[in-house]
Amino acid sequence: MGDNTFGNHLKITSFGESHGVLIGVIVDGIPAGVNFSLDLIQKELNMRKPGQSHLATPRDELDKAQILSGIFNNKTTGAPICLIIKNEDIDSIKYEKFRELLRPSHIDYSALKKYGGFADYRGSGRFSGRITAGFVMAGALAKQVLRKHNIYIIAYTRGIGSIVDDRYYDFKEFERWLSIREKSIVRSLHPELSKDMIKKIEIVRNSGDSIGGLIKCVAINFPAGVGGPLFNSIESNLSKAIFSIPAIKGIEFGAGFKAARMKGSEHNDPWIIKDSKILTEKNDSGGIIGGISTGMPIEFTVAIKPTPSIEVSQKTVNIKTMKEDLIQIEGKHDPCIVPRAVILVEAMTAIVLLDYLLLEGKISSVIES
Amino acid sequence: MGDNTFGNHLKITSFGESHGVLIGVIVDGIPAGVNFSLDLIQKELNMRKPGQSHLATPRDELDKAQILSGIFNNKTTGAPICLIIKNEDIDSIKYEKFRELLRPSHIDYSALKKYGGFADYRGSGRFSGRITAGFVMAGALAKQVLRKHNIYIIAYTRGIGSIVDDRYYDFKEFERWLSIREKSIVRSLHPELSKDMIKKIEIVRNSGDSIGGLIKCVAINFPAGVGGPLFNSIESNLSKAIFSIPAIKGIEFGAGFKAARMKGSEHNDPWIIKDSKILTEKNDSGGIIGGISTGMPIEFTVAIKPTPSIEVSQKTVNIKTMKEDLIQIEGKHDPCIVPRAVILVEAMTAIVLLDYLLLEGKISSVIES
Amino acid sequence: MGDNTFGNHLKITSFGESHGVLIGVIVDGIPAGVNFSLDLIQKELNMRKPGQSHLATPRDELDKAQILSGIFNNKTTGAPICLIIKNEDIDSIKYEKFRELLRPSHIDYSALKKYGGFADYRGSGRFSGRITAGFVMAGALAKQVLRKHNIYIIAYTRGIGSIVDDRYYDFKEFERWLSIREKSIVRSLHPELSKDMIKKIEIVRNSGDSIGGLIKCVAINFPAGVGGPLFNSIESNLSKAIFSIPAIKGIEFGAGFKAARMKGSEHNDPWIIKDSKILTEKNDSGGIIGGISTGMPIEFTVAIKPTPSIEVSQKTVNIKTMKEDLIQIEGKHDPCIVPRAVILVEAMTAIVLLDYLLLEGKISSVIES
Amino acid sequence: MGDNTFGNHLKITSFGESHGVLIGVIVDGIPAGVNFSLDLIQKELNMRKPGQSHLATPRDELDKAQILSGIFNNKTTGAPICLIIKNEDIDSIKYEKFRELLRPSHIDYSALKKYGGFADYRGSGRFSGRITAGFVMAGALAKQVLRKHNIYIIAYTRGIGSIVDDRYYDFKEFERWLSIREKSIVRSLHPELSKDMIKKIEIVRNSGDSIGGLIKCVAINFPAGVGGPLFNSIESNLSKAIFSIPAIKGIEFGAGFKAARMKGSEHNDPWIIKDSKILTEKNDSGGIIGGISTGMPIEFTVAIKPTPSIEVSQKTVNIKTMKEDLIQIEGKHDPCIVPRAVILVEAMTAIVLLDYLLLEGKISSVIES
Repeated sequence: MGDNTFGNHLKITSFGESHGVLIGVIVDGIPAGVNFSLDLIQKELNMRKPGQSHLATPRDELDKAQILSGIFNNKTTGAPICLIIKNEDIDSIKYEKFRELLRPSHIDYSALKKYGGFADYRGSGRFSGRITAGFVMAGALAKQVLRKHNIYIIAYTRGIGSIVDDRYYDFKEFERWLSIREKSIVRSLHPELSKDMIKKIEIVRNSGDSIGGLIKCVAINFPAGVGGPLFNSIESNLSKAIFSIPAIKGIEFGAGFKAARMKGSEHNDPWIIKDSKILTEKNDSGGIIGGISTGMPIEFTVAIKPTPSIEVSQKTVNIKTMKEDLIQIEGKHDPCIVPRAVILVEAMTAIVLLDYLLLEGKISSVIES
Repeated sequence: MGDNTFGNHLKITSFGESHGVLIGVIVDGIPAGVNFSLDLIQKELNMRKPGQSHLATPRDELDKAQILSGIFNNKTTGAPICLIIKNEDIDSIKYEKFRELLRPSHIDYSALKKYGGFADYRGSGRFSGRITAGFVMAGALAKQVLRKHNIYIIAYTRGIGSIVDDRYYDFKEFERWLSIREKSIVRSLHPELSKDMIKKIEIVRNSGDSIGGLIKCVAINFPAGVGGPLFNSIESNLSKAIFSIPAIKGIEFGAGFKAARMKGSEHNDPWIIKDSKILTEKNDSGGIIGGISTGMPIEFTVAIKPTPSIEVSQKTVNIKTMKEDLIQIEGKHDPCIVPRAVILVEAMTAIVLLDYLLLEGKISSVIES
Repeated sequence: MGDNTFGNHLKITSFGESHGVLIGVIVDGIPAGVNFSLDLIQKELNMRKPGQSHLATPRDELDKAQILSGIFNNKTTGAPICLIIKNEDIDSIKYEKFRELLRPSHIDYSALKKYGGFADYRGSGRFSGRITAGFVMAGALAKQVLRKHNIYIIAYTRGIGSIVDDRYYDFKEFERWLSIREKSIVRSLHPELSKDMIKKIEIVRNSGDSIGGLIKCVAINFPAGVGGPLFNSIESNLSKAIFSIPAIKGIEFGAGFKAARMKGSEHNDPWIIKDSKILTEKNDSGGIIGGISTGMPIEFTVAIKPTPSIEVSQKTVNIKTMKEDLIQIEGKHDPCIVPRAVILVEAMTAIVLLDYLLLEGKISSVIES
Repeated sequence: MGDNTFGNHLKITSFGESHGVLIGVIVDGIPAGVNFSLDLIQKELNMRKPGQSHLATPRDELDKAQILSGIFNNKTTGAPICLIIKNEDIDSIKYEKFRELLRPSHIDYSALKKYGGFADYRGSGRFSGRITAGFVMAGALAKQVLRKHNIYIIAYTRGIGSIVDDRYYDFKEFERWLSIREKSIVRSLHPELSKDMIKKIEIVRNSGDSIGGLIKCVAINFPAGVGGPLFNSIESNLSKAIFSIPAIKGIEFGAGFKAARMKGSEHNDPWIIKDSKILTEKNDSGGIIGGISTGMPIEFTVAIKPTPSIEVSQKTVNIKTMKEDLIQIEGKHDPCIVPRAVILVEAMTAIVLLDYLLLEGKISSVIES
């Protein structure tokens, strides 16, 4: 099943393998006439890059974005845009043994069942988080178009393990929050919690273990009246996009799982008038009602599981001998993938939201700048 | 945007309005040769039907399934199957006022922005939960095909407000659990908690309020090796389907949001051998790794928000006068939609899982019975 | 494979069988706010109706359009519109024998291979031309929207057998041409050839035979710059739509097959300026270059095969005895399907062209009238 | 509109520009486990390559296929396969003037209207026939899979100008026909007509003109029972694919346009039994009835227009001065694109037919070789 293309008006197609020649993405449907900046794409890629801090996998990759098609005179042309990064730091030998010894909560077994042993297993092949570098590049492009229309998206680390940032940010000073996030190597907006999160990751890493976390994402100034009931709900399309990021275990919009414990009188968002505009007093709806945007910020949180590759010894099965065994996974792994996944959540959100606006004719397919 | 069709090999198309002539669904792609039973469909519809218990809205509808196309000699033919229910108990007058007075956390405002005031607002039109009767009928058909292939799906009420059933069910005696669920008017599997849940709903109803809850869904015997990384992940397609059910605020697979607080050594599911089969010792992965099924039960939980239609007085805005005002919503409403939504979660899950098996050629498009 | 839905922004879903309860269509994605007229739909249906002239099958059907969803206060709402006609004149007995005795160039064998004998064979079931009544209703709606935007589509009988009308019509007096077509029971625009065509059909009918023909379709005022190279070319999408009409064997755009014998210097359409607008001097390109509209009329011709159901004795095979045999097909059949197919070609063209304009944001999803 | 992806189970995504860095294609959905041969792909590419004979454009390109993803241990893995060729012989200067002076029957005007002047016009950018090198590579892969399942596809030049080869080939000695075709630089199967065709092209080229032609394509051993009525008809999907090849003006299946002049008694294909198999005596249906394959060869013919780029002086418009003018197009152009398009028609046919077999579960997504 050809399942590496996503989207409607705006389509992204992912290709490449972790230890192959490259990782790439085709971004198709970006309006013509948009100023193109490879630097802006690189800046976002750097937020996903391995080795960006002492908390990330030390795999030594430059992750330098290159453009192969779709740009002319430094502008988008309406043609499909191909962006790639090359793979450099490849050491595939250690992956040989996982062909026999299944890594717990890793894709060895399900991939074997699906691809009959033909999948490229080196560096986890198509299942590597590295594939998502393509999402980041596509998202960076989408965000540039959205910004021209005054729509801003930010994701940040809301939790690492049981350290959770429950402050509510309104993101009116958007650029300031971006720069605060940039300074935190865990992509937190909270100066103190940021330190606690870093310490937490250091501790699990030192014990050869890993840890999960939460990422919150907010889109502001998204116009009211976009989306639809049923299958075209914003939640439907966002969740489909978000769950294509590996390691995500849950998503909740607005009040989310808390809503399950709430009464209607608590959960309902009263309509108010402010500066002659219709708003809600709070935003437990997460900016979406009936699958359609309300004009309030679109807000959701995702749960990220702990990296499955850990040095701690684990029970497993050797599929050749069909005997139970133990496994220890050495190598270059992130003790916590949350900080690097922040930009991914932002990217997929941008792709979905831009797709909506293009489909509903709210952003034109030619942008005169 | 024509957004009322969902699926790939198996496609469902929804039509009809809450206070129009009927609610219908076209189910396209069901294999030919399947024995068709309107009774089985009716049985499932009855689980969503208004007035089925004293906890549900008293809207007086028979919800009698009728078949308009696609069945011949009591079997499916490979043609699109059209199933409908008629609308009988229609009293649209009270909806007039919501054209001016926005119901909090209801679709009045976002729908206005999207459809420019042309949407059928009677009974909330296309946004009514009643639309999902079509999902139930489609799901009932899908489940019949899945059962022929030994795949069983069950959803149940896991929580009402803060009453949460955290027992782990293995569903080996599948039919027994179905009949336990049938006996609980809140669709709980837990005899004691069921009573608490009922009481809880009675209390909020009596105070003119509403309450949210949790639904868990489990699919057993789904084969390993189905799905895909990235955009075709089982989580992606299931979540897209599930969020097309109104009132859902969150979804989590396996350990879900708990995974965010776990270490890898806790979360990882050790591979084991049991009866010469490769299984995992526990199932925090929810039966899906890398977007692909592992052969373990597929498990997820969804959060349902409290019904927004409540009698309690709420702050709101009159869009004609553009002044703030108060609103009280009288009429026939469910104090808790969770029990009626259980069958919906099951239905959408069946549709998605059958679609996968048809697409991957694991279920043939002609079934010789 | 769920293959009864067509389109992107505008989607149509077909359901029903020739001898089932009804024939229906769901039209999804028509903008909200369009004035709805069942009369206009009926008028178009009447052009496809059996028994409309002595040249058409005498099957006695009223083909009365009914609306089941999507219309409120006589306007479209943005919701899916369900339109149906009931089946009345059903006599299925004669179809029993074709289960054994294959009708030449009819679907008995290929349908058997696809649906394993479960297809509804009565009146040819889903393969009946009657199914396309749904296309006509959907097309009538699409044309109403296009007309609001000054875009007009007309199809007409260009040939019956070897009688071919090669006059070039410019359709500036559009309504006049429509009324000329209405007066010709073969839907010809040419008063003399119309008579010849009628005579030709009478002759073949009297000999128990059938005859093919040509339909030309022209869309005027379609804006330049719509479509795309490659897979989104107007030719790609129109041909996909047109070939979903049964009995069509070929399609050609502009000069079409003649272009194969032409030199570039003959085929190329010189650009000229007329009334300050850029046009081409002639239109061998059929209004499309590089898959994109040029602003000139979109023009194409389709070839329709002779109806396969003929009374003339034919060689065939009995699949039960697996012996060669003879077959004579009696019953209600059109000696020439061309006149009734004219409105179908128009309908599918309208659906495709409106879909493009909605997708590219040139027609809004809410129409304020 | 992201319109550079085509297909369902098997998807191809096209990217690159004529004078950009490269031309590429992503082929997604090819089963895992297929032996991969870059040589076979190169062999097919060479049939499309410029400069392959004295009749083709002398643009000096190696068109050397490179593989960037999706292959591991010389086998397909189930991952998307990226194939590219680099652009080498780039001289873009002459295209500057076409920004003002519209080339007749070329995309300058329609592209301007669509992309607002931002399209890469060098070498006609995305509209260049060169883009289709990607189709050839994808088609070569598809054909390898089809051959494993005993399905063979051949296209050949049926006509150049008025020289038409109306012999009926049965392709039982498939490889022999391929090698006959290989020896003809115009890709004809007819030794004498081949010479006439070559002469014809030489004559038009020497007069600075160009000429159109016909390509016929035949697929043998395609199983009966594949396809569907209406929107999923084989004609619908094949025609959509075929019209994405630039310069195609028409397509006809089986008897095609001739059917319009035939009686039912002439056109109908009698069913016969031969070697205990049900066949038709002739194949005016082109192997498809009711949109579904009959098991007979799938046969269709396409009309190719003469290359629009000719040296002969033509009337046109200067869009800067908005005055009529004359244009002469010099440079490297094919006097007849038909011979190079033969492999393209074959490629797109292979892609569509393989997609059907994968979708309908007739070819597995893992091939054990």
